[in-house]
Amino acid sequence: MSERLRVGIVGCSGYVGGEALRLLLDHPHVEVTQATSEREAGKFVYFAHPNLRGRTQLKFRSAKQTEPADVLFLCLPHGLAQEQIGRYAELAPRIVDLSADFRLRDPARYARWYGKPHTAPEWIERFVYGLPELRRSALKGAQFVSGVGCNATASNLALKPLVDAGVLDKARPPIVDLKVGSSEGGNASSAGSHHPERSGVVRSFSPVGHRHSAEVEQELGLEGVQLSVTSVEMVRGVLATAHAWVRPGTLTKELWKAYRSCYGNEPFVRLVKDRSGIHRFPEPKILAGSNYADVGFELDERSGRVVSLCAIDNLMKGAAGSAVQALNLMCGFDERAGLGFPGLHPC
Amino acid sequence: MSERLRVGIVGCSGYVGGEALRLLLDHPHVEVTQATSEREAGKFVYFAHPNLRGRTQLKFRSAKQTEPADVLFLCLPHGLAQEQIGRYAELAPRIVDLSADFRLRDPARYARWYGKPHTAPEWIERFVYGLPELRRSALKGAQFVSGVGCNATASNLALKPLVDAGVLDKARPPIVDLKVGSSEGGNASSAGSHHPERSGVVRSFSPVGHRHSAEVEQELGLEGVQLSVTSVEMVRGVLATAHAWVRPGTLTKELWKAYRSCYGNEPFVRLVKDRSGIHRFPEPKILAGSNYADVGFELDERSGRVVSLCAIDNLMKGAAGSAVQALNLMCGFDERAGLGFPGLHPC
Amino acid sequence: MSERLRVGIVGCSGYVGGEALRLLLDHPHVEVTQATSEREAGKFVYFAHPNLRGRTQLKFRSAKQTEPADVLFLCLPHGLAQEQIGRYAELAPRIVDLSADFRLRDPARYARWYGKPHTAPEWIERFVYGLPELRRSALKGAQFVSGVGCNATASNLALKPLVDAGVLDKARPPIVDLKVGSSEGGNASSAGSHHPERSGVVRSFSPVGHRHSAEVEQELGLEGVQLSVTSVEMVRGVLATAHAWVRPGTLTKELWKAYRSCYGNEPFVRLVKDRSGIHRFPEPKILAGSNYADVGFELDERSGRVVSLCAIDNLMKGAAGSAVQALNLMCGFDERAGLGFPGLHPC
Amino acid sequence: MSERLRVGIVGCSGYVGGEALRLLLDHPHVEVTQATSEREAGKFVYFAHPNLRGRTQLKFRSAKQTEPADVLFLCLPHGLAQEQIGRYAELAPRIVDLSADFRLRDPARYARWYGKPHTAPEWIERFVYGLPELRRSALKGAQFVSGVGCNATASNLALKPLVDAGVLDKARPPIVDLKVGSSEGGNASSAGSHHPERSGVVRSFSPVGHRHSAEVEQELGLEGVQLSVTSVEMVRGVLATAHAWVRPGTLTKELWKAYRSCYGNEPFVRLVKDRSGIHRFPEPKILAGSNYADVGFELDERSGRVVSLCAIDNLMKGAAGSAVQALNLMCGFDERAGLGFPGLHPC
Repeated sequence: MSERLRVGIVGCSGYVGGEALRLLLDHPHVEVTQATSEREAGKFVYFAHPNLRGRTQLKFRSAKQTEPADVLFLCLPHGLAQEQIGRYAELAPRIVDLSADFRLRDPARYARWYGKPHTAPEWIERFVYGLPELRRSALKGAQFVSGVGCNATASNLALKPLVDAGVLDKARPPIVDLKVGSSEGGNASSAGSHHPERSGVVRSFSPVGHRHSAEVEQELGLEGVQLSVTSVEMVRGVLATAHAWVRPGTLTKELWKAYRSCYGNEPFVRLVKDRSGIHRFPEPKILAGSNYADVGFELDERSGRVVSLCAIDNLMKGAAGSAVQALNLMCGFDERAGLGFPGLHPC
Repeated sequence: MSERLRVGIVGCSGYVGGEALRLLLDHPHVEVTQATSEREAGKFVYFAHPNLRGRTQLKFRSAKQTEPADVLFLCLPHGLAQEQIGRYAELAPRIVDLSADFRLRDPARYARWYGKPHTAPEWIERFVYGLPELRRSALKGAQFVSGVGCNATASNLALKPLVDAGVLDKARPPIVDLKVGSSEGGNASSAGSHHPERSGVVRSFSPVGHRHSAEVEQELGLEGVQLSVTSVEMVRGVLATAHAWVRPGTLTKELWKAYRSCYGNEPFVRLVKDRSGIHRFPEPKILAGSNYADVGFELDERSGRVVSLCAIDNLMKGAAGSAVQALNLMCGFDERAGLGFPGLHPC
Repeated sequence: MSERLRVGIVGCSGYVGGEALRLLLDHPHVEVTQATSEREAGKFVYFAHPNLRGRTQLKFRSAKQTEPADVLFLCLPHGLAQEQIGRYAELAPRIVDLSADFRLRDPARYARWYGKPHTAPEWIERFVYGLPELRRSALKGAQFVSGVGCNATASNLALKPLVDAGVLDKARPPIVDLKVGSSEGGNASSAGSHHPERSGVVRSFSPVGHRHSAEVEQELGLEGVQLSVTSVEMVRGVLATAHAWVRPGTLTKELWKAYRSCYGNEPFVRLVKDRSGIHRFPEPKILAGSNYADVGFELDERSGRVVSLCAIDNLMKGAAGSAVQALNLMCGFDERAGLGFPGLHPC
Repeated sequence: MSERLRVGIVGCSGYVGGEALRLLLDHPHVEVTQATSEREAGKFVYFAHPNLRGRTQLKFRSAKQTEPADVLFLCLPHGLAQEQIGRYAELAPRIVDLSADFRLRDPARYARWYGKPHTAPEWIERFVYGLPELRRSALKGAQFVSGVGCNATASNLALKPLVDAGVLDKARPPIVDLKVGSSEGGNASSAGSHHPERSGVVRSFSPVGHRHSAEVEQELGLEGVQLSVTSVEMVRGVLATAHAWVRPGTLTKELWKAYRSCYGNEPFVRLVKDRSGIHRFPEPKILAGSNYADVGFELDERSGRVVSLCAIDNLMKGAAGSAVQALNLMCGFDERAGLGFPGLHPC
């Protein structure tokens, strides 16, 4: 165990922290040495994460007791990491911050979408956006890596093949209609998350102006992309249905080529577009716990209307899974290390 | 409208109060004149009960502003009604109290199960237990009527035919294994009702010692009945699976006769025991919004083991529905008035 | 009972037929005299529709045994009604056909979307499209009325205020992203409807080219409207999320005026657009069993992007409920007769 | 790879076969060399098991093409293995049969519960019952191993500590009330598994006389144990609620000792009995995909009534997981090999 990377997770009682903990406990090159939680300090981590009962005797400590480590995962509420980044950077040479604090490159863009100025703008440029499918080369050997927005990730991965191929109709920016599960809201209960109210909903909670639009515009270089988010009956999972337009006359086989070219070598992106069967298109339910992003599309050749689909587990490829994949790139490990679970069927 | 009964609902922002409101707004002989809520005072009732948007312009008022009425429905948290019964009895000649405060006839039994002495024991004997299938004659013309426990009701209706027929093995009191939905917990959110935690559970929350046992023992005259409650993925509904024993050699046709004798004339009890099809036994999902109790059974003739089943909607036959049925008996209306909705299929 | 309208339901064992039966059994001016089913002929109707147990002793008969009636509801699989319309028109002076056979006015459009020529084109013009919000005056006194597509209805009602107000950007036809429940697929089981496969899905089944587009184009006079349909975990219900564009600079209050002008007098359309609370936008779960269409919207004033929302119960406002409402108009009854159930909360 | 055990899965397109395939593909000492399916022969295995897309290029073949292997897993419908055991035993020196064919030691018991005589009774005694917690020593080095019934397994593991400690009241055999998910029914669709009918049910499908009772009686040496099974809204999972009786006066701490003594060294049994928190008792939802059995209990010391609980994933500890654990014992591998996935939270 002496050669394993010592990793600490700050803010580990939430859903993202718990998922990072699950992955890192079974990671071949990592030893989790600390997990912090103000609310649960002193309790076994399996009190908050009952799936880990019998897997570890680690207890939560207060963040004030954070000790030096090889890597720190910060899973704090948005806004805290930018206030404390200096302190954590003194404790560890490598930081993965899963909040929204260091995702946007432009402080002005941050201020516009998050409603207040960034408090550590000088740190922003030191961070690499943590989605390997977009930033692999920059992530290799990086010291500071941001997390990714879950809805942004599903949107980015749905649209990237069309952007890369240069076939999008610029005059008509895509509309991404996202269907999401309840774990996106975190682990704090509210009137709206109360089971009798939340169960079975198809609830529009962000029809226009969703914050993750900023990450899509930044990462894909698109202007005017619009995200609409609807909550559905599901705990984990996102399906991005991206409504986009290409030049009328574009052929399905041309798009196939673009998608293959984009993702053919990606270890965690699968193309799903079958002619028959139940699972002809990407869907999130078989991805729970897995780091896969399943991507597919359907084109109306006559009109040039394309629907590009991406399904992910919001806590995995949309958060902790991409973070571990980024860690593997930062440290030179096999990119797939610790991310072997394929998902379940049926489920 | 002048001849309609003026009814007020005290504590109307909760689930039981809202269900009573839904029923009474469409009741042919009732006008709802007041609805109280401390939390939502001043708001339209459809803010708390969105199904009633467009049905009424009634607003919540504070309970302190309760005015005289022909009938008051009290839908307060357990413990409040016994403190305030004197005041409400001055405001209305008839009271239907849906809390647990006036269900148990014996103050000692109340103290044992609820952990503190009853504060208005002198009022207890003035109340009639509000389940028409058990107390119809006493309910006719009654002034003060209690509500019913939802789990107690499913248990009572499952066991009553066996008790009435005198076939139960006294040495082996029944075990009632109840499967219940999330609305039983009321409308206050908690860590356990948070959707990601509550969704899809099969969660044992009261394996032994459930309070509603007291109502079953009292109403059926049985000693040692045991209720076990498990939460399942459902918002409305209870299924009581009563494991009981009769004399070995008892025949199915004898039990059929007992069930028919017990419920043949009941307007809201249906016998469900089919040889084929999907819906061979009672199940709660088709009862949402309906006042029906569906009852059925299966007997192992050789061993004398019988499983008696009762499905209800906990907010209807287990609360507001029985209360309106009781109101109809109190006031001499058609017992079915206002309770016509049959439930949906599929749903 | 002698003055009640004698209504027969042809094809009554399916979900739409069962829902029509539920409504008509409690309709104050109707007596259901016949219900046909080839598969279940000879059985009580509650064998197929267990919610109706105890409500009627009617048995299914074969369609061959259909007798004269005042009105026939045809709930047959698509394609059968056009073959048999002559025969049924001889049996009843008024027909409500809930299939897709007589919804499209243009036989060429029918052939294009349904893949084969219409076999009774001469009957098409005798039918009125059965959505009261669009065709009220024509429905009054009509003899032949078509049903409506459930997805088309949610789309039509979401878009109508924008069309009527003339504010839509014609260069950018709306995209309607529909989230639908499993009852849309009817009552025949398949590999894809098997519970372990269908449970919890967010499944894209018709990303482009949905047939109901034809009804939207016809009824709203729009060209190029696109419907995309995704199945979610829900039995009943549709949410239409219509992504549309108006002139940048259009104000929310102007759209409010348009929506109020469109629906202010509609008995079954409610505007839902609140600033706070859980239920700020339309959602289908509280509409199960109700004939309401809840409509709302959100506008990004700067860009002119508007998301218009409509939630319905696909079996009610999207099928049997609109059909009964149309019947009321055909026969001069109160338009709301038999459609009083408001829906449940919680559920 | 040359030293890996070559394993074939016969009947691999069903849910149990697919789960065995998922586990064995990632097993460190195994190579899956064949997977058969009559229905899907010629197709990639991920056509039936979409979670395995990208994990293997294996295709289904017909069972007739089964080739020699080190081990064969038989995942055939009940009744087929006993007819073909001779042939498969010629192809492989070790067999794990997951059907019900070789679980019962007594052919007469088999005939009574399965309604027809066993066709290969001479093979029965060569098989070891495949639950490591009950038959570990016999499984070590065994050649022929049976699978386990999922409901029997949850029941056996709930009751074993009480049996081992000798505290059960023999005069009152336990009643086990099981709540189960839809995957127990296999992957063939039916009217009852159609999503609109199966969704949200609490459906009693086997109130008395469940077949798995035979496995409980055999393995625990109890007479008269009764299993009752209720389907609930869940795909994977079983909760066994065992209602049992011990001598009045027995203390909780005595039972704690019994449970610890029984399971303290088991790698896949966890004791769950907390005083606070949401997850105080075993529940199946966090076990999906995991091989854990979570066991807990609650005792009413006064009456001697005990409720013993066991939660499992029916496809894992109740089928493929136990089978792989048994394989590890048969072959001398680490008992936990290939079974490392801990389950998810939230989910």
